[in-house]
Amino acid sequence: MQLLKDRIIKDGTVIGTEIVKVDSFLNQQLDVNLFQAIGREIHQRFKNDKVDKILTIEASGIAIATVTAMEYGNIPLVYAKKAKPNTMTDDFYKAAVKSFTKGTVSEVVVSRKYLQPGEKILIIDDFLAHGEAMQGLISLCRQAQCEVVGLCAVIEKSFQGGGDKLRKAGYHLESLARIKAIADGKIVFAD
Amino acid sequence: MQLLKDRIIKDGTVIGTEIVKVDSFLNQQLDVNLFQAIGREIHQRFKNDKVDKILTIEASGIAIATVTAMEYGNIPLVYAKKAKPNTMTDDFYKAAVKSFTKGTVSEVVVSRKYLQPGEKILIIDDFLAHGEAMQGLISLCRQAQCEVVGLCAVIEKSFQGGGDKLRKAGYHLESLARIKAIADGKIVFAD
Repeated sequence: MQLLKDRIIKDGTVIGTEIVKVDSFLNQQLDVNLFQAIGREIHQRFKNDKVDKILTIEASGIAIATVTAMEYGNIPLVYAKKAKPNTMTDDFYKAAVKSFTKGTVSEVVVSRKYLQPGEKILIIDDFLAHGEAMQGLISLCRQAQCEVVGLCAVIEKSFQGGGDKLRKAGYHLESLARIKAIADGKIVFAD
Repeated sequence: MQLLKDRIIKDGTVIGTEIVKVDSFLNQQLDVNLFQAIGREIHQRFKNDKVDKILTIEASGIAIATVTAMEYGNIPLVYAKKAKPNTMTDDFYKAAVKSFTKGTVSEVVVSRKYLQPGEKILIIDDFLAHGEAMQGLISLCRQAQCEVVGLCAVIEKSFQGGGDKLRKAGYHLESLARIKAIADGKIVFAD
């Protein structure tokens, strides 16, 4: 997605050789214009698939999932939570997820009633690095006996291997911008 | 907002005398149709105010802030984070916020560069109970010397007093649904 890649070059910040900060437009501060374009692009990339529901993870996936759900004609979206609130009294599915940026392992949870057996799920997240968050979301879907129609990352850091693992496992994974390396402080895209 | 009140009655669940669960349509699982109506209503309620930016707090405020920012013609939105990620290297403003539902005190942070002196800010959150989250967001704006144009809660539990404190302090606070009591397992709206 050229618009996104241009924006990453213009406003992204590189830290070391592994981290790209995009918090001026993608997380923390959000450019809603760009988000609408992202929602259209995701919908376009999965246009041949029937999708019942979008699944993401708090927090930065929520806005992306919201605009995408709108593009799909307002299908429901569900987000997994990183801590079980004390209002969450129902049975829930859970999976362990390691955060690359925070250096922590957390348990993500979703109420059983929001993932029903047989539902066709599109999983969306902002970043795909080692693939831990995606794997956690896939685990929630498998526990619920949902069908994972596809996976979409806004930015994939392909040099960290998570994307290739998911492709090898047979998932239809789309990444709107694939970064293959960060070299000499510069971002190098895969295509 | 009648559509919202009807939905709370239809799909909300009461726990004890203080908690209303709305995770089948407002948080955890989101009805994007309803969200678009909420965005239009918030824009309508603050139509006389110039708003430069929307400020909310992760996670459940993000989707509401996204649809509202769209209604405003795609102004930027900023969300405060509940934990400082290790990619957040800039100076930041911080405030302590007690979570009513989680029973914890956390520090919320926002990068200084996303709240600039003089900016006119509309603060949005899903729930207003004791007002702790709103007070934290107001504190971030004051530290940044921004102008708080208004506050909007999707659901105010007025019996917990946070809203009245904010009104007495002179803020223009709008709540789309005000719950004045939970009695015998039933929700009683203020109007």
